[in-house]
Amino acid sequence: MTKKETIIFDDDAFEEGGFEDTLTITDQRDQTYLDEWIAYYRDYAREGASATYIPALAEADASQLGIVMARPDGTMLKAGDHDVPFTLQSISKVISFIQVCLDYGISEVLEKVDVEPTGDAFNSILRLELHKPGRPFNPMINAGALTVASMLCERTPEGKVSSTLDLLEAMLGKRPGINEQVFESEWETAHRNRAMAYYLKENGFLDCPVEDALNVYLKACSIEVHTEDIAKIGLILAYDGYDPVTDQRHFPIEVARLTKALMVTCGMYNASGKFAARVGLPSKSGVSGGIMTVVSERAGSRYSPVPHGGGIGVFGPAIDDYGNSIGGSLLLAQLAKDWDLNIF
Amino acid sequence: MTKKETIIFDDDAFEEGGFEDTLTITDQRDQTYLDEWIAYYRDYAREGASATYIPALAEADASQLGIVMARPDGTMLKAGDHDVPFTLQSISKVISFIQVCLDYGISEVLEKVDVEPTGDAFNSILRLELHKPGRPFNPMINAGALTVASMLCERTPEGKVSSTLDLLEAMLGKRPGINEQVFESEWETAHRNRAMAYYLKENGFLDCPVEDALNVYLKACSIEVHTEDIAKIGLILAYDGYDPVTDQRHFPIEVARLTKALMVTCGMYNASGKFAARVGLPSKSGVSGGIMTVVSERAGSRYSPVPHGGGIGVFGPAIDDYGNSIGGSLLLAQLAKDWDLNIF
Amino acid sequence: MTKKETIIFDDDAFEEGGFEDTLTITDQRDQTYLDEWIAYYRDYAREGASATYIPALAEADASQLGIVMARPDGTMLKAGDHDVPFTLQSISKVISFIQVCLDYGISEVLEKVDVEPTGDAFNSILRLELHKPGRPFNPMINAGALTVASMLCERTPEGKVSSTLDLLEAMLGKRPGINEQVFESEWETAHRNRAMAYYLKENGFLDCPVEDALNVYLKACSIEVHTEDIAKIGLILAYDGYDPVTDQRHFPIEVARLTKALMVTCGMYNASGKFAARVGLPSKSGVSGGIMTVVSERAGSRYSPVPHGGGIGVFGPAIDDYGNSIGGSLLLAQLAKDWDLNIF
Amino acid sequence: MTKKETIIFDDDAFEEGGFEDTLTITDQRDQTYLDEWIAYYRDYAREGASATYIPALAEADASQLGIVMARPDGTMLKAGDHDVPFTLQSISKVISFIQVCLDYGISEVLEKVDVEPTGDAFNSILRLELHKPGRPFNPMINAGALTVASMLCERTPEGKVSSTLDLLEAMLGKRPGINEQVFESEWETAHRNRAMAYYLKENGFLDCPVEDALNVYLKACSIEVHTEDIAKIGLILAYDGYDPVTDQRHFPIEVARLTKALMVTCGMYNASGKFAARVGLPSKSGVSGGIMTVVSERAGSRYSPVPHGGGIGVFGPAIDDYGNSIGGSLLLAQLAKDWDLNIF
Repeated sequence: MTKKETIIFDDDAFEEGGFEDTLTITDQRDQTYLDEWIAYYRDYAREGASATYIPALAEADASQLGIVMARPDGTMLKAGDHDVPFTLQSISKVISFIQVCLDYGISEVLEKVDVEPTGDAFNSILRLELHKPGRPFNPMINAGALTVASMLCERTPEGKVSSTLDLLEAMLGKRPGINEQVFESEWETAHRNRAMAYYLKENGFLDCPVEDALNVYLKACSIEVHTEDIAKIGLILAYDGYDPVTDQRHFPIEVARLTKALMVTCGMYNASGKFAARVGLPSKSGVSGGIMTVVSERAGSRYSPVPHGGGIGVFGPAIDDYGNSIGGSLLLAQLAKDWDLNIF
Repeated sequence: MTKKETIIFDDDAFEEGGFEDTLTITDQRDQTYLDEWIAYYRDYAREGASATYIPALAEADASQLGIVMARPDGTMLKAGDHDVPFTLQSISKVISFIQVCLDYGISEVLEKVDVEPTGDAFNSILRLELHKPGRPFNPMINAGALTVASMLCERTPEGKVSSTLDLLEAMLGKRPGINEQVFESEWETAHRNRAMAYYLKENGFLDCPVEDALNVYLKACSIEVHTEDIAKIGLILAYDGYDPVTDQRHFPIEVARLTKALMVTCGMYNASGKFAARVGLPSKSGVSGGIMTVVSERAGSRYSPVPHGGGIGVFGPAIDDYGNSIGGSLLLAQLAKDWDLNIF
Repeated sequence: MTKKETIIFDDDAFEEGGFEDTLTITDQRDQTYLDEWIAYYRDYAREGASATYIPALAEADASQLGIVMARPDGTMLKAGDHDVPFTLQSISKVISFIQVCLDYGISEVLEKVDVEPTGDAFNSILRLELHKPGRPFNPMINAGALTVASMLCERTPEGKVSSTLDLLEAMLGKRPGINEQVFESEWETAHRNRAMAYYLKENGFLDCPVEDALNVYLKACSIEVHTEDIAKIGLILAYDGYDPVTDQRHFPIEVARLTKALMVTCGMYNASGKFAARVGLPSKSGVSGGIMTVVSERAGSRYSPVPHGGGIGVFGPAIDDYGNSIGGSLLLAQLAKDWDLNIF
Repeated sequence: MTKKETIIFDDDAFEEGGFEDTLTITDQRDQTYLDEWIAYYRDYAREGASATYIPALAEADASQLGIVMARPDGTMLKAGDHDVPFTLQSISKVISFIQVCLDYGISEVLEKVDVEPTGDAFNSILRLELHKPGRPFNPMINAGALTVASMLCERTPEGKVSSTLDLLEAMLGKRPGINEQVFESEWETAHRNRAMAYYLKENGFLDCPVEDALNVYLKACSIEVHTEDIAKIGLILAYDGYDPVTDQRHFPIEVARLTKALMVTCGMYNASGKFAARVGLPSKSGVSGGIMTVVSERAGSRYSPVPHGGGIGVFGPAIDDYGNSIGGSLLLAQLAKDWDLNIF
């Protein structure tokens, strides 16, 4: 396989024709396909850098790139650096949102947090002042996630991040741990999140003490997973809350649909519109380099290794200015195009 | 059929359980179903009001509500006030966007206008000052649509709105007219659009004289159609640019996919996120009360009258604060739920 | 003296001719003049309300109004409710700013906080995000005052609010106390100030721990004084840092000039421009209803009881939407006009 | 005289001690003093550049610097490039504001335009959207000046810029001309001003057709004057609307006071706060490099050549990022310090 242009959020690369010119790989085995593209996009990733605003994340190896595809029959396709542990970061916003919907019901949650994309950076505070009464615009930006975290708090924050961990344990069949080093690092540099939390408190959109909400929020961000874990959760979302492998329902269809809609409109930070336009797969990214992607049952195409839908986990710590994995985004764009997975 | 709760953008109604409690109608004929829901939602619409900022639109009858569903076999389901002519308004943004992609190619268009939702009102100018270099965030808000209109201008504006009309004529099999009364009314009250156009000009995102761009933009807004016309265009979008009835391709798959992604993230003004979350169908609304909706081929469900996808046109001139038809939004939410059309 | 129209920030009253039509009082004794106007403007004040966002302030009697004029010969003119103790609130921003200039020198202070008016409310956070690198616009809004407070902090906040108290003690000849009830009330409801402090911390404009800066800031706000105390400080500012009564210099001329310029451009919250235009006296207000005003030596007019300059203290707890004493503002406008004290 | 550090808006220069370390010049003749400082600050100016956004202004010689001081006895001190003609640009905002107050009365003017500084750039449009109902914040920024221009328009714009010219002719004893080359240049590149004017129109703050208001506004900006002309107007403002040389009153005291207050809080673009803090003289600048400054009668110091007040005109076309003459600002700061002219 020779190098060639591909899709990237950078308009130049996009313009150079990523969508138009691609390998015909229908006759290649899926594994080979994934291996080759991983190798190819690793070079792009090397030009990026890992997140620097959280010291503990800055140490990641920018050239890493891995993928796992989870299928409804329980099999998985894996390629690249899929066995490197990483922290969920913003991907946890999806899990916490599902959990809070389970705890309170969709309607009560939506009173506290809207589901509208903003076009602003994930840590922007502007809108809380500009729009009365200061309800966060969606649960995928920090402001909304802090409101969700505050709803998850009952008595003790310790007790409540465990509700997020409980949901993860149920879905993954194992209880993930919290990376304490990352948590400490985030906790100590969380000035802007604290600013946002106090602002929400002032406006009546933070139900528990600020420090508790931050604790729950940052603990959830610091949950350590592997690529296959987020692929697995993607599979459950693809099946609208039901796990076809274990034959278990984890959350109702309505919650799954709402969550996937949110992933499309708000899941890739303030590049969500571009990602929807160019990739077209419900996805949620984190600044540690993970992307959790859903191929809904009806969106799975016969050309793909997931004809009946599935979940995709990607990990590549080199991120762009929006906070999304560079290699991961490119890889997903390639797959979506070659395998006709775009939901639109 | 008795009255009952339903989905509405108003959180209260949503909270009261719209999603949960609905009629079982699988045994009813589709026509009866549509007739009854039209009658039902007309009452909601009556509480709203037609657009007032364009004098000529203020005269519309707020109690009107109509629907047309266009199927790939050429048949159509129609109910309610489907035969009332109305102007495209913002729905024209979709047509012009497709046309400009045909004229310049996607890449060149995206250099001039981004595809990112904003959370701001359709006529907001803030973002052009806040974000350098002032590229409009997406072609579904006025700023972006003006940039698109300026690209459509060549020599004479007269000549160029005709390229939009040409595309419409090709798709509809007849050439729609321009409602000159509405155009005059818009032209005279277009202060804010003019402000935006001059601001874009200053920033280098308006390629032709301001007055020409406005002429093209407002002429396109004033194109008069019927509900079945937008249903028909929805059908062509559902088939990715191909008309299954006439066996004609009008635009490439890539343009169709991009357009549908934009409709999901930005199509319902700054209620797009809410509409995606609660209805989940690519749609574009206009302040005259029209909504053009797409049921993609793969999203059509076997429960529905459009198992192989189709287009839906809705018309109901009573609009909410966002600018979307109240009755139309509720009707679409009902259909999407009852017939399992949500793409997520 | 009969009732008549007067100056008020409300444009209507202003329009009705406040400036044009006033009593001729040159033949009245100054005391009588003050007594009568106090009585007159009390009625206006009654229509207002005391600050509600700090519970402890909400209890104040809205009909109170008092004034003290301090002259360079040590005599004072007093009228109305001049003996009611109140907390400094934002007036403390002036004292702390002077102190921090003494501690660090003007240049170092101005690196951390600009001296530019904003037009925004005192507790606005917008500008810290909109303008890089997030340096607060001036020390008279909360953001800037928090930066100043953080500079005043050395080891312990306890130790450092005492530097503000030290300056006050030197100027007043007595050490004011802190109203602990008010402090507690402010401390518990300081969510928005905390948000701002953390945001400043993130941007590098808060030199000490957030809680320490808040402690110093809110303690300074809670310092309890009488009207004559702020009149006395006004006198020292009028004499550019020198107390003509005790023959002591408290701060350099440059600091005094800078402070008075700031009071004119930023001293009356986001009504500073209006106050400069309509009253024209360097002043700083607080939400507890105090206003500290300076009649510079060269601005004192021969018509006035302060021909060689002096300080004016006003107290009237009914405040307008900007946070300024209603009765106090009107009274000062009357004085400035009748006695030709406007510096412009 | 050797080179040394001086005051500049750049904090570094300020910090290096401009205020503290200056020549002792009390024994020098004023003319020599001015000549030497002109020569000295010309070097600073050379580092700047003339305005580029109006093509016709870009040709100015950045090294020019001139000053004229107009005294109440009719004599003038002149130094440097005082005989170079230049266009008023924003200095015209002062003249037009005075004229509109004469035409309508202060109260009616203030209903249409506030007198509050903003901290935003002169051509910012943000605030018109953020603050309802969109009344411009002050007449010294473009938005407010356009509103003022629209009020000056009666039937024909031609007729109405002549009311501004009439006021100038009365004050200067000669009728200034309009630099048609500059006017054409501004007219053709006025996209942003047009945007602002249409926005104001939409909000109800533009009383005449947009093109007429722009014509009046840009014609007023293009009025050509010499440094002595603005010095002369400064003198009239210093004497509150009265010309002590010709013994004529041109406008009432109230208008003069209001105008001078506006010059202090808003006269030097969004460096007005800094200029008030560091120079302390009511001034209005224009992007062509002029600054019109007022030494009020009571602010004139016995150390200065204007012990009874006077007007200062400065011209130096190299401007800083705010739009203010670099050499001119430095020169005024030097004078204000050495001659004790600061009004605070």
